[in-house]
Amino acid sequence: MSSFTPRAPSDDQKFILDHIIGYSEIAATPAFSEAGPEITEAMLGAAARICDEVVAPVNRNGDLFPARLENGVLRSSPGFDTAFRAIAEGGLIGLSASAEFGGMGLPHTLATCVNEMLAGACLALQLNPLLTQGQVEALEHHASAELKALYLPKLNSGEWSGTMNLTEPQAGTDVGALRTKALANADGSYAITGQKIFITWGDSDLVSNVCHLVLARLPDAPAGTKGISLFLVPKYLPDADGNPGTANSLRVVSLEHKLGIHGSPTCVMEFSDATGWLVDAPGKGMAAMFTMMNNARLGVGMQGVGLAETALQAATAYARDRIQGKTPDGSPGIIGHADVRRILAEARAELFSARVIGLGCAKAIDMARATGDAHWKARAALLTPIAKSYGTDTGIAIADAALQIHGGMGYIEETGAAQYLRDIRITAIYEGTNGIQAMDLVGRKLVDSGEAALRMIHEIQTDAREARTSLPELADPLWQAAEALREATEAMLAAEMNDRFAGASAYLRAFALVLGGDAHLRAALADPSRLALARVMIRRLLPQHEALLAAAGEPAAVLYAALPA
Amino acid sequence: MSSFTPRAPSDDQKFILDHIIGYSEIAATPAFSEAGPEITEAMLGAAARICDEVVAPVNRNGDLFPARLENGVLRSSPGFDTAFRAIAEGGLIGLSASAEFGGMGLPHTLATCVNEMLAGACLALQLNPLLTQGQVEALEHHASAELKALYLPKLNSGEWSGTMNLTEPQAGTDVGALRTKALANADGSYAITGQKIFITWGDSDLVSNVCHLVLARLPDAPAGTKGISLFLVPKYLPDADGNPGTANSLRVVSLEHKLGIHGSPTCVMEFSDATGWLVDAPGKGMAAMFTMMNNARLGVGMQGVGLAETALQAATAYARDRIQGKTPDGSPGIIGHADVRRILAEARAELFSARVIGLGCAKAIDMARATGDAHWKARAALLTPIAKSYGTDTGIAIADAALQIHGGMGYIEETGAAQYLRDIRITAIYEGTNGIQAMDLVGRKLVDSGEAALRMIHEIQTDAREARTSLPELADPLWQAAEALREATEAMLAAEMNDRFAGASAYLRAFALVLGGDAHLRAALADPSRLALARVMIRRLLPQHEALLAAAGEPAAVLYAALPA
Repeated sequence: MSSFTPRAPSDDQKFILDHIIGYSEIAATPAFSEAGPEITEAMLGAAARICDEVVAPVNRNGDLFPARLENGVLRSSPGFDTAFRAIAEGGLIGLSASAEFGGMGLPHTLATCVNEMLAGACLALQLNPLLTQGQVEALEHHASAELKALYLPKLNSGEWSGTMNLTEPQAGTDVGALRTKALANADGSYAITGQKIFITWGDSDLVSNVCHLVLARLPDAPAGTKGISLFLVPKYLPDADGNPGTANSLRVVSLEHKLGIHGSPTCVMEFSDATGWLVDAPGKGMAAMFTMMNNARLGVGMQGVGLAETALQAATAYARDRIQGKTPDGSPGIIGHADVRRILAEARAELFSARVIGLGCAKAIDMARATGDAHWKARAALLTPIAKSYGTDTGIAIADAALQIHGGMGYIEETGAAQYLRDIRITAIYEGTNGIQAMDLVGRKLVDSGEAALRMIHEIQTDAREARTSLPELADPLWQAAEALREATEAMLAAEMNDRFAGASAYLRAFALVLGGDAHLRAALADPSRLALARVMIRRLLPQHEALLAAAGEPAAVLYAALPA
Repeated sequence: MSSFTPRAPSDDQKFILDHIIGYSEIAATPAFSEAGPEITEAMLGAAARICDEVVAPVNRNGDLFPARLENGVLRSSPGFDTAFRAIAEGGLIGLSASAEFGGMGLPHTLATCVNEMLAGACLALQLNPLLTQGQVEALEHHASAELKALYLPKLNSGEWSGTMNLTEPQAGTDVGALRTKALANADGSYAITGQKIFITWGDSDLVSNVCHLVLARLPDAPAGTKGISLFLVPKYLPDADGNPGTANSLRVVSLEHKLGIHGSPTCVMEFSDATGWLVDAPGKGMAAMFTMMNNARLGVGMQGVGLAETALQAATAYARDRIQGKTPDGSPGIIGHADVRRILAEARAELFSARVIGLGCAKAIDMARATGDAHWKARAALLTPIAKSYGTDTGIAIADAALQIHGGMGYIEETGAAQYLRDIRITAIYEGTNGIQAMDLVGRKLVDSGEAALRMIHEIQTDAREARTSLPELADPLWQAAEALREATEAMLAAEMNDRFAGASAYLRAFALVLGGDAHLRAALADPSRLALARVMIRRLLPQHEALLAAAGEPAAVLYAALPA
């Protein structure tokens, strides 16, 4: 029924790289000297073509014909193999991986653009390379030279894929409660035994080997997170030539029946004395996992943005085509009705904000890597929970609004709008729920006495001050909002930790709105055709910061009194 | 996997009837003199038992084993027959229908409580009696004495059921575009021909006859809504004894495959010279349909409230049981974490607000009927779009939050949280999308120069003024918010209609939050144990009114400029 095909947002990304976040600063560092305008534009264009022509067309298949287990063998959705091959052969998996091991060594910012497009085309499939990229990152930083040499080239090329095995039934957010065991073998390898749940792409028929990073405990390891080590456990043990050899003793027990991303197999994994290799030192598992998880968090935030872009394009196309009554502006479609226009314009404004926040976070990661500057590192750390949480909350709200635009048709599965909403819903949960992100922001990310946050706010106020004459109707409310955020940040720093936590989610969203207001101000200054959308952001949406900061300042005790435990 | 069973919220409803909305005022009218405390309490208790023990247990079946067509015959989900019988035999269908035709003649407010509980127990099934109730209402007001005598007793008893046939592929929100035709037969009946879509419970094996109210055009009828007439078209033509006789020439063509409410068959209906009888005069179809639709809108609002109650109970139970890390208050479950507590407390606060708004609307309907007072009629009209829109938007947000509380488990279908979200999502769409409700509010419902709205706001300010000494921290912000709403209402009245429409959704939510704040203030005054929840509503959530009213005052032109048509 649905004949809608999305168009990857490489043009909007290009605008943001060039005019909002200052991508050229990355390309100016020696580490990324190859990331000039030509290669960047070429990569964005190539990725957009792959997404539009090969990946997006299989998205519906993933929903209708979910991945399944056939006598213990995983069968992925029809067409996923072709699409995965195109992604791999386009170099999109190893884009930002080290060139030493088969990657292209390009900026993470560029990879983030590409990942957003892939997620918008087919979230269920994109999860596969996203997890591989996370594994590559973890191995680059923490694995031995032998493991790197053996695994990285095959992961970067898409010959093999990677997974992340953290969760156990009793150990979700509280990873420290995990029980999977590791025992040293005589040859330096380890025997891993335990059950893991929620393992995305825990098996795959798209690749010749699946490499599991598994958190487990060595004997006599201390309780909690300090006793956790990380192991690389492949589905097939590499033979002397590095090719998949003997099957390892691990298996997929079952697949979950989920609300969405049906094309992405979510596995219950069983490891029974499976052979694995230690990554980093014993007890360093959580640190290694966090390397992987931080970038994955940004990646998930951009999944929200990417899929929301697709949902919003579908809704906009529908609103142009669907005729119901006369419209005030004479448009034939319902897009001429003010309330429909409002939904679409507000969604477009927040989507732009979320994209800028995510790409700004990616830039900080690149700059930290390229310059080693602590300020960039702190900025990346600060923006990560905001990019994850705001990107996915906003993305979900947009997918929901997009369904609403379709009216009754939106509720019919064949239309496709419902799939976007079902698929995107997971992004607020995995890689740390959005509540955890908010706690991370007001807890760990303000331990620098708020320096990174206050510096960011100061920059926004500088932007606003400079635009005071040219665009006062945008600059003034932005400056005021940033000032309110500054005061709220100082109040947060003075508050007890549980009062901070009680206000964390509201504070995070307020922070994101101020960042979004700044993004739109810069956009309007760079391109006057973006002025009206900036006004939607700054005058219709940004005012929410006041109520959010009021909520953020309310004490935790009221919440505990309001509802019995 | 899920062993959760909801508990119908009759206690909270009772508190609202007694302490917030003044239900006794209804019982003090001659029309409802039988609705004293005993019968009211007895009915609420009986309905709650039916919901908890018989209806809620079949809810999962509706999702897992959807209604289906078997050689053109509808088969409802397993267990629905038993549950439907219990609803019918408990007198819950005809509760507020006229006693003259087999109803119980009790207040619509009481029926609204019962309907909320039924929706919370099983939305897919509750749609069936809800539509029958709407049909009874339409027939009571608009049908001939013969039709009333023949149909009403069987509809009220649940022997037959009713449907509402408005939508056609090209005529959704724009009902006036419909094409179904009616031709007069020689015997005074009509021959109806056309196709209708989105017909809820368009067939049913729970009853012996299905009665369709069908909108159609007579020959030479004027274009648009003025040319629409209403016809009663039964599945089986009643024989001389009033029993189902010859099959009428209508059929279910197909069932839709929907995001949720799988247990509720959504039918494509085909009428081919089907025999029907005119209800009310030619060309009066829309007026008759609006009788039905207005109460249905409140009913849908309460579906949002009822299902959100169930979702929130499930999430609260999960948050008590699920152990992840140490909590600040020492609770074993994650309910001890401030951000989890925040989600649950904010949801509880808004749910209470929505329930009070819905029951306040129901009371106005009853008072209008009992007294004929234009003020009550205007209040019912004012509150209907707010009850529908806020009840369902809030309900969806709560079901979404409830899923989030479950973490990864929430995304697994077996947990049940996903079903609540999928099911409740339709409520923002059917019976007029929430955007249409908002346009109704700022358009039709302010045509009295805002008198009904301003009177309501005045009452809230009186409440706030009276509580200024006892509860200043709640009364003062409520008074201020009501004052801002008063100013915004006056600005709305002065604005061009399309500027009103551009601000309609934001204005509606702001109005609802002020009403909710008043509800909580009254609750806190009546029962000090509700003070903390009132503070959550008034100090954490009510401040949103400022940003909403700022958005409501922004001109439409910016939205049109922000996004090309």
